[in-house]
Amino acid sequence: MMPPLVPRWPAWLFCWRAACIQGASVRQRMWVGPSRIPGLGGPRGAWGTSPLAPRGSCLASSRAPEVTLTPERYPVRRLPFSVVSEDDLAALEQVVPGRVITDPEELEAPNLDWLRTVRGSSKVLLRPRTTQEVAHILRYCHERNLAVNPQGGNTGMVGGSTPVFDEIILSTALMNQVLSFHDVSGVLVCQAGCVLEALSQYVEERGFIMPLDLGAKGSCHIGGNVATNAGGLRFLRYGSLRGTVLGLEVVLADGAVLNCLTSLRKDNTGYDLKQLFIGSEGTLGVITAVSILCPPKPSAVNVAFLGCPGFAEVLQTFRTCRAMLGEILSAFEFMDAECMKLVRLHLGLSCPVQESPFYVLIETAGSGPGHDAEKLGCFLEQVLDSGLVTDGTLGSDERRIKMLWALRERITEALSRDGYVYKYDLSLPLDRLYDLVGDLRARLGPSAKHVVGYGHLGDGNLHLNVTAETFSASLLGALEPYVYEWTAGQRGSVSAEHGLGFKKKDVLGYSKPPEALQLMRQLKALLDPKGILNPYKMLPTHA
Amino acid sequence: MMPPLVPRWPAWLFCWRAACIQGASVRQRMWVGPSRIPGLGGPRGAWGTSPLAPRGSCLASSRAPEVTLTPERYPVRRLPFSVVSEDDLAALEQVVPGRVITDPEELEAPNLDWLRTVRGSSKVLLRPRTTQEVAHILRYCHERNLAVNPQGGNTGMVGGSTPVFDEIILSTALMNQVLSFHDVSGVLVCQAGCVLEALSQYVEERGFIMPLDLGAKGSCHIGGNVATNAGGLRFLRYGSLRGTVLGLEVVLADGAVLNCLTSLRKDNTGYDLKQLFIGSEGTLGVITAVSILCPPKPSAVNVAFLGCPGFAEVLQTFRTCRAMLGEILSAFEFMDAECMKLVRLHLGLSCPVQESPFYVLIETAGSGPGHDAEKLGCFLEQVLDSGLVTDGTLGSDERRIKMLWALRERITEALSRDGYVYKYDLSLPLDRLYDLVGDLRARLGPSAKHVVGYGHLGDGNLHLNVTAETFSASLLGALEPYVYEWTAGQRGSVSAEHGLGFKKKDVLGYSKPPEALQLMRQLKALLDPKGILNPYKMLPTHA
Repeated sequence: MMPPLVPRWPAWLFCWRAACIQGASVRQRMWVGPSRIPGLGGPRGAWGTSPLAPRGSCLASSRAPEVTLTPERYPVRRLPFSVVSEDDLAALEQVVPGRVITDPEELEAPNLDWLRTVRGSSKVLLRPRTTQEVAHILRYCHERNLAVNPQGGNTGMVGGSTPVFDEIILSTALMNQVLSFHDVSGVLVCQAGCVLEALSQYVEERGFIMPLDLGAKGSCHIGGNVATNAGGLRFLRYGSLRGTVLGLEVVLADGAVLNCLTSLRKDNTGYDLKQLFIGSEGTLGVITAVSILCPPKPSAVNVAFLGCPGFAEVLQTFRTCRAMLGEILSAFEFMDAECMKLVRLHLGLSCPVQESPFYVLIETAGSGPGHDAEKLGCFLEQVLDSGLVTDGTLGSDERRIKMLWALRERITEALSRDGYVYKYDLSLPLDRLYDLVGDLRARLGPSAKHVVGYGHLGDGNLHLNVTAETFSASLLGALEPYVYEWTAGQRGSVSAEHGLGFKKKDVLGYSKPPEALQLMRQLKALLDPKGILNPYKMLPTHA
Repeated sequence: MMPPLVPRWPAWLFCWRAACIQGASVRQRMWVGPSRIPGLGGPRGAWGTSPLAPRGSCLASSRAPEVTLTPERYPVRRLPFSVVSEDDLAALEQVVPGRVITDPEELEAPNLDWLRTVRGSSKVLLRPRTTQEVAHILRYCHERNLAVNPQGGNTGMVGGSTPVFDEIILSTALMNQVLSFHDVSGVLVCQAGCVLEALSQYVEERGFIMPLDLGAKGSCHIGGNVATNAGGLRFLRYGSLRGTVLGLEVVLADGAVLNCLTSLRKDNTGYDLKQLFIGSEGTLGVITAVSILCPPKPSAVNVAFLGCPGFAEVLQTFRTCRAMLGEILSAFEFMDAECMKLVRLHLGLSCPVQESPFYVLIETAGSGPGHDAEKLGCFLEQVLDSGLVTDGTLGSDERRIKMLWALRERITEALSRDGYVYKYDLSLPLDRLYDLVGDLRARLGPSAKHVVGYGHLGDGNLHLNVTAETFSASLLGALEPYVYEWTAGQRGSVSAEHGLGFKKKDVLGYSKPPEALQLMRQLKALLDPKGILNPYKMLPTHA
């Protein structure tokens, strides 16, 4: 057993100080060939620790005003689960001695989501250390008909990780052991409560990287990442967790342990049961350990931050980029001018290139610094010459890479400081990806403060956000179901990577047919017949 | 609707003529730097049509001696399904007019697997063209309690695609339409009966490649590939079908159509139902259409065929290769000297390098021919200088690449010509990958004709084959359960990529715990309560 990986920040609180980006700007026409590109070909280790601490943002604090209880804001009724009794507490104390938390103050943070939009009233939080403890807890809760809310870093966007009523919170925070790492295959096996950033550091010291990276990495747990099928910033290059997760250990609703914690790259013996639990948001079982394939750490990482005159040029830049950068392309992100305005206004970040209607962040990661620089140089020359890009700047050292990334990653934080935020996370066909943003600006007029679009363009994933001074039912009515119907009309997804949780569960039908909903309900009934696991989440309230 | 993609060979018969490889051999110490490497930097299009026709091999022919019926060779009893009546035939004729095949001669091939090890006695084969026809057929069969054997190209290794008794054969052969292709995203949507090689040609003409490639590509159907979660030769680079398949349309046992045929890269709305059907070998539903993400076609492909003095050197070559070739590595295959002996003996192929205990085939695929050649050159210099490799030859033009690949791909064919073949497809930890081969040689002594090891080393996948003049129960007894127990002892998989089908279903327990088997049975009961879909396959006979 290796030493535990302890998160460096409380799970529910991840703040950082604003950092102003002031980097060299390379104006249009300055790139004429690879030889003129400054700073390309970064040193080994460019994907190390961020000087800005974790990517993410902070809204919650222990001194913030109280958030309305979920059942008072949303139409939801408590299901007939048992209520935790003194006898239950005594029995659970036997299972996890000294780790049954009932102090109301300690329970404040885990009852609240980090966006401060939902709040439960759980009276008990349990901190198991082992799979067997989780199994004992679930066996007990199943017998007693007690509802359970599994919780990792509690960094979700859709209220999936906080209780709705008084569900027992089952925290994976103390399940933070690396169980094994193989330095040839890159297979990492660890407990579910390991913090993503701690794992990243662990494998980077051994010449590998985690196949996923998220803004919340300083707090989120790998078990939660898998349970929500987290996407993030490396999806374009390393694909979905459905491909990189090799095995899982899961405790089922009745406490049975399902050990599919294989480290094999290939295994076609029977149905791939782990897939049931990836992305099931804790409603089918509690993930207790994860086996995941880590790619080798690239020896060269470069980031280009570019300004584009229109969305058509953004798309054309993406096409050119894919063709010319090929296998070294590791991210293609975009943000509009409104996003840049907000990160400047609320976080004091400055735009590193001349003002443009759109900005693109391109990351390359490869094994040959010189080759990568040459490919990137040719690409940049091409997009500047053709007018697809009007201005740009480059980063290849760790600090500058992180600073350029911050412009894209801290948009969520800037939005939250702008007022009440209506958040949508959509998958759309590339050529229609931005249309909805313009539609909404026209539709909402001055009733919205800002309508912004940004996201993982390379994956067809738009983050559409609308801000207003305060919550308004009429603005919500203008947004929904319009946004969902528009997305359904394009055969898109109403939740690309955030999942459904509590807040989006009733819009599932916009992206899935009735036959799929029926089968999902059947699977839930099969695996959790009493419905004790993360109730009120994921599946729509009504049939 | 685009024109159908018709297979160029009958689905059950894929032969080719032996081709002798006579290429330039580059001896040890001849590579001293990139500039001396001949032929690197292949032209765009190197992954085009093979001069050798499809990769695969041929054993079946319409004139071959009769194969024993499966129930006469294996201990299996017919389940109480209905027997097809004249009324049934008339009813099915209404559903697929003119496409209800009952001619015994036409039924010979689809009743027999291509390895000629299992043979069913189906009296009916149906050839639907549309999803609705499949739905009608299954609705009818479900009501009538008629068992159904879905069949694609019938190229499986484990008897999963042929009937065991008199199951109705539901062939996807006429469901061969490309439904759409998006030339920016590379998303292909097609019917399940499209032949893999036809799809490859289709997308290659548009600047993309299929994310999978198999020896059987000239005959296998994409629906069958997905149903068996086929691995193959591009797995190392593009990963599992669980990541590259974006959507599926599936007809369930009762005829309900489950349309999850999305083309989205990301979609976290509810449980990912398509994963249930990937790798379920037709036991949970019939896949009727597939949406799959195709990677851009690399502009440069190179193949190096190398001789290694021992297995330790093979492993070290792999490590070096991963570090130095990084993102351009697209395949790392190995074969032992016995394999080379058999392809020479039975197929007349000649070894292109000096004789060695082991051979390695490395393929690179990238977007910069010059860069790739330079990386490969540095790598080859390193492995030759360090003595990991003693001899090697290169190919970068299409014909030579195919010829080098044939040495590896035609091993199966050579083995089959060597006598009766006991086949094992194992996932093992890399450092123990070849140990079992030596163990078995010692254990079996002269009772085996040849014991050979080869496979997808980069994926930890060993193909272990033992040949003998004829089938022998005592040799089988010496092999099984020894091979499975040995594999289980290493926490390996007893079926890495071939699946379980009929022949391997009873060894599932060596790689999965009882809790997993129980859940698999529950899923089968949920999705196919009457058990009509591909019965006698995948799940063990006894609890």
